[in-house]
Amino acid sequence: MSFNHRDEHIDENMLLIQANLDDMNPEWVSYIMDKLFEAGANDVYVVPIIMKKGRPGIMLNVLVEDGRLSDIEGIIFSETTTLGIRYMHASCHRLAREFERVETQWGTMTVKVGYHGGKLVQFAPEFKECEQIAKEYQVPLKLVYEEVRASFRLQKIKNASS
Amino acid sequence: MSFNHRDEHIDENMLLIQANLDDMNPEWVSYIMDKLFEAGANDVYVVPIIMKKGRPGIMLNVLVEDGRLSDIEGIIFSETTTLGIRYMHASCHRLAREFERVETQWGTMTVKVGYHGGKLVQFAPEFKECEQIAKEYQVPLKLVYEEVRASFRLQKIKNASS
Amino acid sequence: MSFNHRDEHIDENMLLIQANLDDMNPEWVSYIMDKLFEAGANDVYVVPIIMKKGRPGIMLNVLVEDGRLSDIEGIIFSETTTLGIRYMHASCHRLAREFERVETQWGTMTVKVGYHGGKLVQFAPEFKECEQIAKEYQVPLKLVYEEVRASFRLQKIKNASS
Amino acid sequence: MSFNHRDEHIDENMLLIQANLDDMNPEWVSYIMDKLFEAGANDVYVVPIIMKKGRPGIMLNVLVEDGRLSDIEGIIFSETTTLGIRYMHASCHRLAREFERVETQWGTMTVKVGYHGGKLVQFAPEFKECEQIAKEYQVPLKLVYEEVRASFRLQKIKNASS
Amino acid sequence: MSFNHRDEHIDENMLLIQANLDDMNPEWVSYIMDKLFEAGANDVYVVPIIMKKGRPGIMLNVLVEDGRLSDIEGIIFSETTTLGIRYMHASCHRLAREFERVETQWGTMTVKVGYHGGKLVQFAPEFKECEQIAKEYQVPLKLVYEEVRASFRLQKIKNASS
Amino acid sequence: MSFNHRDEHIDENMLLIQANLDDMNPEWVSYIMDKLFEAGANDVYVVPIIMKKGRPGIMLNVLVEDGRLSDIEGIIFSETTTLGIRYMHASCHRLAREFERVETQWGTMTVKVGYHGGKLVQFAPEFKECEQIAKEYQVPLKLVYEEVRASFRLQKIKNASS
Repeated sequence: MSFNHRDEHIDENMLLIQANLDDMNPEWVSYIMDKLFEAGANDVYVVPIIMKKGRPGIMLNVLVEDGRLSDIEGIIFSETTTLGIRYMHASCHRLAREFERVETQWGTMTVKVGYHGGKLVQFAPEFKECEQIAKEYQVPLKLVYEEVRASFRLQKIKNASS
Repeated sequence: MSFNHRDEHIDENMLLIQANLDDMNPEWVSYIMDKLFEAGANDVYVVPIIMKKGRPGIMLNVLVEDGRLSDIEGIIFSETTTLGIRYMHASCHRLAREFERVETQWGTMTVKVGYHGGKLVQFAPEFKECEQIAKEYQVPLKLVYEEVRASFRLQKIKNASS
Repeated sequence: MSFNHRDEHIDENMLLIQANLDDMNPEWVSYIMDKLFEAGANDVYVVPIIMKKGRPGIMLNVLVEDGRLSDIEGIIFSETTTLGIRYMHASCHRLAREFERVETQWGTMTVKVGYHGGKLVQFAPEFKECEQIAKEYQVPLKLVYEEVRASFRLQKIKNASS
Repeated sequence: MSFNHRDEHIDENMLLIQANLDDMNPEWVSYIMDKLFEAGANDVYVVPIIMKKGRPGIMLNVLVEDGRLSDIEGIIFSETTTLGIRYMHASCHRLAREFERVETQWGTMTVKVGYHGGKLVQFAPEFKECEQIAKEYQVPLKLVYEEVRASFRLQKIKNASS
Repeated sequence: MSFNHRDEHIDENMLLIQANLDDMNPEWVSYIMDKLFEAGANDVYVVPIIMKKGRPGIMLNVLVEDGRLSDIEGIIFSETTTLGIRYMHASCHRLAREFERVETQWGTMTVKVGYHGGKLVQFAPEFKECEQIAKEYQVPLKLVYEEVRASFRLQKIKNASS
Repeated sequence: MSFNHRDEHIDENMLLIQANLDDMNPEWVSYIMDKLFEAGANDVYVVPIIMKKGRPGIMLNVLVEDGRLSDIEGIIFSETTTLGIRYMHASCHRLAREFERVETQWGTMTVKVGYHGGKLVQFAPEFKECEQIAKEYQVPLKLVYEEVRASFRLQKIKNASS
């Protein structure tokens, strides 16, 4: 399995790990999420749930390759308050991803592009760059997004017709 | 203001008190809700929210007469972890309420009825009674509800036509 | 496997497909859900979640036979903004379902009935019919439901005792 | 007060009406929301909440001019199962709104534009039109949005520079 | 498989059973959750979701050993309104659990302790005991928790250094 | 009104500003929240809601002194996609707040303390400091919290008895 992870591919050895937390300080959640990403989690997210006795808990979800299960468990058991976790086998279908450059009034910026079956289906400005431009030039973030998207679109149309 | 609180009325001296909790053990919530009801709250509920730094917090809401503000605050400050609460003036429009009796296969049961402008608009079996019957007779709770509702409806139709 | 899908059955070749969306216009969700149902999804629902950096995203869930995976993926990749989806194998246990007719003051109406092990366990008025009657006769929707349920119940009791 | 409601304005005679529902069939919600909009509600939305005994209820919210309180209450009491509602005074600040036309590859389409202090701050393609184009031309809804937004933006830039 | 369930272990024969409910009285949820726990469910929780036509439904989740599937289904089909359920295979990793005693100003109390790889990683006061003490001594629940945790921590430190 | 804002006080000139967002990229939310805090908001939080046509929107909430309404509106109109906001008058009751120092194995740390009626009712370790210690010393964040809390508690008991 020597494919480039930038190519569209299906990864069949994934686990979705879940832990229900009904007695933990929610202030810790972002710290724990960051730690799980650093340990190689492909995705981390939380879901508001209602647990026994009507407790407003949260369900922590971690999507990760099965080889990293033990590391992720280590973090969950040491950083959260849970006495158990569960996991289910999952397959991930990931699009081919490329970073492309686009010219804007604020200079060259980056767009993350996704291809499905060789066809461009997604493109999204890089959040951090847009945030930085919005702060530096004191323009609304939404305008930065708008211009990056419009410029990328125009560039694609030009290339297609040339 | 000597109206019977069973009559339909508007209470204009209500407060909606809110506290955002982002660092509290959610296990305590049901205990705190019970305490607030005992202190005279008309309603208590929690809303899952997202607070600063993406924290999955909960917003505690207490609906209460303005004269009880101080008591309710006392409970919130001593039992939760908040450093502040906010409140807004609210008016409550409450229907006339009556408890009526209805015959079922499990004996006489209670239905809570609501009248708006003298007209019956709501009727609901008493949860606790239904729960008790469901346990005692080992029947699904939903069947108990169904029969109580159907019996009450039939009784009303009979009375109307007699 | 030539069973009638109206019979109670277990379908072991199902997939639960999930996509986390943190950068999509939520206005598009209902359109996308409809499209997924048209493409053969057995169920579609969304869950409010909190994603990295505290983003209030939504998780799209699609329950579908494994043979339709590719079609569903095609819709998700072209209509949403996600760069990847995941799926897990699932089994579905579906009750035997029948549509029965019941007489009401507004004419014959339909009740969807579910049987588990040959025993009637569910019955529900058809939403669209009730909605139509409520509009046409200008009666509260809840009263239409109430009467359809009560009439169906009475009809069952009569048939049982005859 | 003879201002055109298309002008930016503040309406200080608004009410936010709320009803907590813990014993109602959620299937009825969209029907009830539509009815409230037809009765003149400016906005209607529901919030998932946790009520006493850990019940997963919903809070119905209706934003409306105070003169319509009684009509809205009539609908809530007859169509939902609540025994009471509450309301708070609110002020609404609404942007000046205009519908502008823009040329696209699918013909002339509409963009809803919002002005704050005379300055264009919002513009959004009309959902229904985009949905219709997406169905008719079998293109992803997101591409229709993208083109309408880009065309409108280009048109504004041209007009500004001419 | 004769391990003591108090030991840390992985149980690979678990099922996560899910049912989406969009037409059920939410008042019944806590009753149903209790019933599922009594029937041997390891965990039960509900998730607020948005179902087709924008209905604010709830997803019931039951985590249980696969041998109990049929019992759990029996309860779900008879007590809820669903026409179908789905389930996925799951593995549960549970920490070694012990109940330890700790001295407090209100007498001896219990702490639930969790061990991962032989190392203490979790400890939590027993909710019911704390609740009882809070009521009996009229002290805030959070203070009871605080003292139980602090006393347990001190006891561990003393034992480690002696 | 020359009270020290560290003293317990009630601020009656607050506004709760709300905007429902059903067509905005959720990726922007944290950026917008930060901007609102910088502009003087006392609190900012978002609530997942269901809007018309079943759209999974979010409600942005900003709590702020009434004198800052116009600034906050400027940010909301330029950074989000809303065509209108609403606001309600609110009163805020804030506890007296002090930062106290406490000795731990990692050096002197800070605890935020809240007083109600002169009585200490809240104390919480400073999140940022704890996070920094957890990273520097590679200990679980929850252990840092535990020690800071326990040390502060012990210090208070000693002072009280000396």
